[in-house]
Amino acid sequence: MANTPIRSVTLPKGFRAAGTTCGIKPSGKPDMALIVADVPCAAAAVFTRNRLPGAPIIAGKRHLRDGKAQAIVINAGVANDATGQEGIDNAITTCKRVTEELATRHGIALNFRDVIPSSTGVIGPQLPMDKISQGVIDLVKNLARGPKPDADASRGIMTTDLTPKPGNTSVKLGNTTARLGGIAKGSGMISPNLATMLVFITTDAAIKPAMLKLALKKATTASFNRISVDQHTSPSDTVAILASGLAGNRTITRPGKAFDQFTEKLTGLCNNLAYQIVKDGEGATRVFHVAVSGARSERHADRVAKAVVDSPLVKTAVHGGDPNWGRIVTAAGYAGVPITPNTLSLTIAGQVAAGKSGSQASGGGGGVCVFNQGVPTRLTSLENKRLKAAMKQKEVYFTLDLGQGNAAVSWLGCDLSREYIRINAEYTT
Amino acid sequence: MANTPIRSVTLPKGFRAAGTTCGIKPSGKPDMALIVADVPCAAAAVFTRNRLPGAPIIAGKRHLRDGKAQAIVINAGVANDATGQEGIDNAITTCKRVTEELATRHGIALNFRDVIPSSTGVIGPQLPMDKISQGVIDLVKNLARGPKPDADASRGIMTTDLTPKPGNTSVKLGNTTARLGGIAKGSGMISPNLATMLVFITTDAAIKPAMLKLALKKATTASFNRISVDQHTSPSDTVAILASGLAGNRTITRPGKAFDQFTEKLTGLCNNLAYQIVKDGEGATRVFHVAVSGARSERHADRVAKAVVDSPLVKTAVHGGDPNWGRIVTAAGYAGVPITPNTLSLTIAGQVAAGKSGSQASGGGGGVCVFNQGVPTRLTSLENKRLKAAMKQKEVYFTLDLGQGNAAVSWLGCDLSREYIRINAEYTT
Repeated sequence: MANTPIRSVTLPKGFRAAGTTCGIKPSGKPDMALIVADVPCAAAAVFTRNRLPGAPIIAGKRHLRDGKAQAIVINAGVANDATGQEGIDNAITTCKRVTEELATRHGIALNFRDVIPSSTGVIGPQLPMDKISQGVIDLVKNLARGPKPDADASRGIMTTDLTPKPGNTSVKLGNTTARLGGIAKGSGMISPNLATMLVFITTDAAIKPAMLKLALKKATTASFNRISVDQHTSPSDTVAILASGLAGNRTITRPGKAFDQFTEKLTGLCNNLAYQIVKDGEGATRVFHVAVSGARSERHADRVAKAVVDSPLVKTAVHGGDPNWGRIVTAAGYAGVPITPNTLSLTIAGQVAAGKSGSQASGGGGGVCVFNQGVPTRLTSLENKRLKAAMKQKEVYFTLDLGQGNAAVSWLGCDLSREYIRINAEYTT
Repeated sequence: MANTPIRSVTLPKGFRAAGTTCGIKPSGKPDMALIVADVPCAAAAVFTRNRLPGAPIIAGKRHLRDGKAQAIVINAGVANDATGQEGIDNAITTCKRVTEELATRHGIALNFRDVIPSSTGVIGPQLPMDKISQGVIDLVKNLARGPKPDADASRGIMTTDLTPKPGNTSVKLGNTTARLGGIAKGSGMISPNLATMLVFITTDAAIKPAMLKLALKKATTASFNRISVDQHTSPSDTVAILASGLAGNRTITRPGKAFDQFTEKLTGLCNNLAYQIVKDGEGATRVFHVAVSGARSERHADRVAKAVVDSPLVKTAVHGGDPNWGRIVTAAGYAGVPITPNTLSLTIAGQVAAGKSGSQASGGGGGVCVFNQGVPTRLTSLENKRLKAAMKQKEVYFTLDLGQGNAAVSWLGCDLSREYIRINAEYTT
């Protein structure tokens, strides 16, 4: 996987990108990225529901009111959150610097409202605007298409991430093939609605802004909103998409077959990126899948899955490869959903899954039912052996059947390790 | 504190206690305790709100329907939770064994419904009834009053606790002094409503069952429901109280001055025990106090405080002594309360507090305001120094003012360390 870099945001027609190091991070690692479209794009974004949103989000929402945008500028290292009016001014100034440089160097005339700003990093400090300005100059100078700018952009948005997170897919719309490419960052403060997760997706599909927004909402609900690393919903979360329309398909203007096909592929790409985020969760050594079925509603299923995925006791049990399944059923017990113990069942399976899709939650028939309709199973020694082996796999599957209805969802989580503590006890200082 | 053992459950008139080792724990540490009153007692308990309550809780609720009890039998090592009907039968059998032994050895005639059963430990396995039976024999044989049985009982209920948690207080009711004594266990699965927290309190105050229940509810709300070690609400949580009435005060039969005095002292004792639980939180090296003021309602204040106390990012920042205050304000931001950023302020203080009360949340004037009405404070180098020093103290105080109303609460939490991971990654196996 590391050998052939995966193409991302400049794969669809009409996009260029760049990454650079402007010196925000004391480590001297890349800390800025830029994505620019050749033409005005339909644009949509989903932002954090944190009540203390970062300044770039406040500005970005305004810029997206018309459903159009043409560039995204991102910095890592400083989140520009909890920074008051000065922070909002800085986010806008960053956008203006981008338009100035694009005009000067490439003759592209944009309004600063065509630029979506985005930041991730430490909360509280103001953006170092001198460094940002120099970074914008470098980014605009380096704008290009191809594997290198794709890779540079994916690295320019990383914080505690160990690996860049690129992805792409394509969708057949009538006789036309449209491409989608995306980059993601995030490995801590990952919890739904959303998390310090930044995701930037480009596509050359032709689609109306309202439809693009709807597709993005559906895709996000089924992917990024069903992962959790540490339940701390970040104030900077952003999933943004630009659609250049250069693929040449008949513009998607309403729900229907083409819209469904586009949404399905977009959801697949989002699941791919979401899986990469969880796999790179801070200190994570294992990924676990929580499939909740038999719920009265999707809302109930989501609550139960989230309680399991967030429980530090479940996360440490997964870390230790310890089949302490009581922690899983009792996490379901405090999810705030009217669980009925005597219809509750739990099956555990493990798999050395190389799959990228986070939505598949079956353990492949090798599962061990440890709790059956409210009664702990008396396991044979063979079953016990299989259970222990399952818990030691890189990918562990928990299937909880509530026995109350037909709704089902699947979530992704990662284990909690000493490394998570190390990373987060020493982050700012 | 370790030199003179603190008296607890046999300090009030009319109580005997014992602890023993019956072999449930592979470690060979004490794992059973018994508290017996000389006379029938008014009794009340508050149990977990987990939807999968342990078998002893199902049995205990039935036994407490008449507001009377005379004994409490506890085992550690196996929680008797998620054990189906067999588990309930085992809990009842344990109570019956206690009454049989009490009758044989002490001539005390109790109904098994006068005994409250309680268990803590691994979820899933059935109780080893042979060991339990032998344990009951030893416990009944060793029943006594004084420092030793107090200490033995407090050790017999421990699981991952590093220290026993005893406490006592007294209350003047008219011309009579009534005593209260209590023991607690718990250092993991600690989250409100309630947590794997077992608390057993005795008093010789004369008080009607309904009033005792009301007093216990008030005391629990203000203490055990405002602490969190790891947010995993245990299915075994129990706070139980027996009132022998032997102090000789005029029986408390209705709300009023005597009831308020009793409730105040009971709350003080509960706060003392709650503080001991958090201080002994699994792997904890620091305690932090989250005082939320200026909220529109106590419910809002509780939600914000709980979000801060539970955030792994706040907990690791406290562990590292890192003044990463952005994590605190953004935790408030995702608490599900309509926070207004421009009225939000945060002050941080530290103190080498030896105090036992968890309710005091002021940093003593030495606090540094890092976020003032939505704007980060530009700290002087002296303030920065004070802030860093504050974060390194054993007790850290976060005061969040929402600027929206008059409601205020105070919560207690502890840091998240590598040691927590070690303890919980290797618990059952």
